Amino acid sequence: MVLVSDAYQSRVDNEAAIMLRRDPVVYSGANDGAQGLVQHQLRNYQKNGFIFLKNFFTESEVALFLKEANRMAADPMIREREETITESGDQIRSIFMVHRLNDLFRRLAADVRLVNIARQILGDEVYIHQSRVNLKPGFVGKEFYWHSDFEAWHVEDGMPRMRALSCAIFLTEHNEFNGPLMFIRGSHMHYISCVGETTADHYRHSLKKQEYGVPDPASLRFLVDRGGIQAPKGPAGSVVLFDCNTMHGSNSNISPYPRSDLLFVYNSVQNALGKPRFGLAPRPEHVATREELSPVVPLEPDYSG
Amino acid sequence: MVLVSDAYQSRVDNEAAIMLRRDPVVYSGANDGAQGLVQHQLRNYQKNGFIFLKNFFTESEVALFLKEANRMAADPMIREREETITESGDQIRSIFMVHRLNDLFRRLAADVRLVNIARQILGDEVYIHQSRVNLKPGFVGKEFYWHSDFEAWHVEDGMPRMRALSCAIFLTEHNEFNGPLMFIRGSHMHYISCVGETTADHYRHSLKKQEYGVPDPASLRFLVDRGGIQAPKGPAGSVVLFDCNTMHGSNSNISPYPRSDLLFVYNSVQNALGKPRFGLAPRPEHVATREELSPVVPLEPDYSG
Repeated sequence: MVLVSDAYQSRVDNEAAIMLRRDPVVYSGANDGAQGLVQHQLRNYQKNGFIFLKNFFTESEVALFLKEANRMAADPMIREREETITESGDQIRSIFMVHRLNDLFRRLAADVRLVNIARQILGDEVYIHQSRVNLKPGFVGKEFYWHSDFEAWHVEDGMPRMRALSCAIFLTEHNEFNGPLMFIRGSHMHYISCVGETTADHYRHSLKKQEYGVPDPASLRFLVDRGGIQAPKGPAGSVVLFDCNTMHGSNSNISPYPRSDLLFVYNSVQNALGKPRFGLAPRPEHVATREELSPVVPLEPDYSG
Repeated sequence: MVLVSDAYQSRVDNEAAIMLRRDPVVYSGANDGAQGLVQHQLRNYQKNGFIFLKNFFTESEVALFLKEANRMAADPMIREREETITESGDQIRSIFMVHRLNDLFRRLAADVRLVNIARQILGDEVYIHQSRVNLKPGFVGKEFYWHSDFEAWHVEDGMPRMRALSCAIFLTEHNEFNGPLMFIRGSHMHYISCVGETTADHYRHSLKKQEYGVPDPASLRFLVDRGGIQAPKGPAGSVVLFDCNTMHGSNSNISPYPRSDLLFVYNSVQNALGKPRFGLAPRPEHVATREELSPVVPLEPDYSG
């Protein structure tokens, strides 16, 4: 048995557990004056653990983002990088750290409209914990099982508290057929401690996402019974902001419609990563940054080219 | 190269082909006088290749069907039969030939309301080509890729013409989260000849569903561009009727909601099976009957127990 003094311990027992969240969802602080979400939006975010902002970016803005994502995916120099994850075949599934690899995405991650919301919710200056482009292709898009990002970030990256959020920018339409993101409403208020092995050694050598950090069916049923599922659907340019502990996942995509998005994870500067649990080695910089912790300096949007 | 004189040849070439349907969708004949679909329903079926009849059965009727399906799935005698298909683990995915294994389902398959519709559309007396219960569980329900039933029935079972239809009775709610059946509207008017190997011998030994009879992406995109996708959603007791050549499939189901249905395939008595193509051995009786070809005798519904 690993001894831990940890409000959010996970993967240490043969039994799952459902614990109450011990952190705020909406923090008060840094950005109370500046623009961001309006009050009823903030209340919805607080209650549901996510908020959907349809048509946040214009058609021409998002067309530029998609073009740039496709340009990156076609770039042989990018394809070779460790930040690029390919599927069987040669299809690119994700490119990580796009806000450092690409100038447009660097500016987009700093878009004052996004950063203000992140600062408002997290009550603090923020930095980018992780960013990526996800290209879920048509016909062969795979499902992504239910998970809380925070569970993995806490265990594998040593993120101390729930004070981070993700911003997903739709690069293509998300519709009912192409495996849209699904969220369990209100799930962010509970923390599902996942079943796991007990020895540090085991973790060091054989941590596998498919086997660890997977919430059990009974806990998922508990969460769904309370809040239900919602899958925000809308055109390219729409945005979903969701709490780091909101349970989410997606079904497969056999439709011809690709489902692509850009993802920026904002973390409070007071919530920088500590040591991973169980003596795990830190994950690579592009998955969980430990170097670039300076607050994002907001930029006025300018995507004219 | 296999020489075939076949209006619907498939799996004989390295190239896919999109052919026009050569058979009626709605036949005129046997049942013009009797009750069935009303005219605008029939027109929709003709045009789309399927029709959705919400709340066709009452809550209490379908509760009885589901109870019986679960009872069968729990019966050790049933579990051992070749008609029962289990997933990895011990979960039952399908039980075939339920209209011959079970008295309630025998009567249900003969329900005059269903049989009248089948006779009206197929313009003939009908028999049950195949029946089954599908139990798509929550959390781990797998996707089912796009396919035309007729393509397989024609090649593997020697069904001569497009003169059959499926009737899917929802045993649970089908919603946007649990991998509902998706149909490509109007796809029944084209026949996708699938890529395949050329030697009879190859077929005899290694026919695999995953590799053969799979429509190519370009043809699917062609069909979807013309008609779009529709996924009928509704409560248990709802019914979808679809043409044997309507392209359909479903995504995975990571939601906690199981997605179960009963399926009866009605075939015209003039369309009984011939020889499978490529010298294939006939598939088992419970997948494609060759013995029970007598017309279904319609029964007044009585599901009081």
